[in-house]
Amino acid sequence: MWGDLDALGIVFYPRYYEWIDGCAHLFFASLGLSLGDLACDKKMIFGLVETSCRYFQPGRYHQDIRIITAISEIGDKTVTLTHNITLAADGQALAEGREKRICLDISRPDELRAVPIPPEIRRVLEQAYLP
Amino acid sequence: MWGDLDALGIVFYPRYYEWIDGCAHLFFASLGLSLGDLACDKKMIFGLVETSCRYFQPGRYHQDIRIITAISEIGDKTVTLTHNITLAADGQALAEGREKRICLDISRPDELRAVPIPPEIRRVLEQAYLP
Amino acid sequence: MWGDLDALGIVFYPRYYEWIDGCAHLFFASLGLSLGDLACDKKMIFGLVETSCRYFQPGRYHQDIRIITAISEIGDKTVTLTHNITLAADGQALAEGREKRICLDISRPDELRAVPIPPEIRRVLEQAYLP
Amino acid sequence: MWGDLDALGIVFYPRYYEWIDGCAHLFFASLGLSLGDLACDKKMIFGLVETSCRYFQPGRYHQDIRIITAISEIGDKTVTLTHNITLAADGQALAEGREKRICLDISRPDELRAVPIPPEIRRVLEQAYLP
Repeated sequence: MWGDLDALGIVFYPRYYEWIDGCAHLFFASLGLSLGDLACDKKMIFGLVETSCRYFQPGRYHQDIRIITAISEIGDKTVTLTHNITLAADGQALAEGREKRICLDISRPDELRAVPIPPEIRRVLEQAYLP
Repeated sequence: MWGDLDALGIVFYPRYYEWIDGCAHLFFASLGLSLGDLACDKKMIFGLVETSCRYFQPGRYHQDIRIITAISEIGDKTVTLTHNITLAADGQALAEGREKRICLDISRPDELRAVPIPPEIRRVLEQAYLP
Repeated sequence: MWGDLDALGIVFYPRYYEWIDGCAHLFFASLGLSLGDLACDKKMIFGLVETSCRYFQPGRYHQDIRIITAISEIGDKTVTLTHNITLAADGQALAEGREKRICLDISRPDELRAVPIPPEIRRVLEQAYLP
Repeated sequence: MWGDLDALGIVFYPRYYEWIDGCAHLFFASLGLSLGDLACDKKMIFGLVETSCRYFQPGRYHQDIRIITAISEIGDKTVTLTHNITLAADGQALAEGREKRICLDISRPDELRAVPIPPEIRRVLEQAYLP
């Protein structure tokens, strides 16, 4: 959208991170692991350890994009997502994002604590992981 | 900043609302009414009923601005803030924002409820109000 | 999305303005008046004079919303859009936004100038205006 | 600010990228290389190839932060900035960002082209680079 562009008329790069964060939430929800519910019900969330993004060509006004999100690595406490961002029209690569997320116990909001991924959640993530 | 500009190189208008919301929080904090503390300790917050902004001239790259926030009206449950946005360099008017905020009981987060402003908070607001 | 929420888990209000600005652009585009093209080809744009929004109930995590955009007034140099924001699930009203936009000559980017809406564009707007 | 927080009350990570992008612009400006002027006058800009950020602890409501920006690498066409984000109060590390930027010829806005960093700009960058 207009507001996602910078003064050169190309997408301001933090917007890509907003979008891939949204996709991460939709991805977890599609596995039955709504991060909103996990936070409320199980007092845990997948917080961020590290993020990165590579930019291949500038995004522009009113282009439709497609973002494919997949698990690229599962650790003891962490799960890494890769987000492939392409133009919907012709599949050209725009950018590729990566989020390394860590399982956090948020029962004491002032002191988040990294914990191993619970086995029942781990199973769900492993089934979605296609190396 | 660069990321606040649109493709014409002028400030994208929702940014003004981000800034005046920040100023509202700083304004309340300056009165000893940190909205963060009110939310945690007293389970109340001043939520939004209505906001508006008029734009007099476009903001541009790396201009320093000044925002003067004041109370323009106090109701039974509401308080209205006016935010005057000027260029720091010469005082030219850029925009004027307005936020009508309502006192909300957030003790049940799923069901926010408008309540009269508590007397001790009302007193503080009235002292800051210079009609 | 998660990033649109504030610390109370409800939509941070400047996000509504980002969305209605996006809808304004889509609305103009649906009339064959892409603001991106107008800016490039005709060196004009519909800039903002004043915006406002009323909030009826808080938006929350992963709710689908619908925004209906319509012209509510046409002046000599201005056009006012009303944006009705409802929950897609049950049509409940979330918020109502308003944008008063003014026709700007941007051929000299440093000195934007308000001009009457050109007749051919005026005709298109009037056909879309259903009082 | 309030609007930079997510529903857990901690900084939503794309905000860090907005801030380090702002710091990159201020850093270039402090070297006499305003990216706004470069874009207008020399039709070049330092666009993004890759960005990343590591998060050490969550940022919270109304904390003052300090961002130290430095050049960490200069290539033929690229320059890499490192942004150290700490709490102003006690210097604790919050996050560390990295931006790899590439020199782009923007004289044809529809077709940005990577070019070697011009010698006079390279000299300025090298003087600011303290390995």
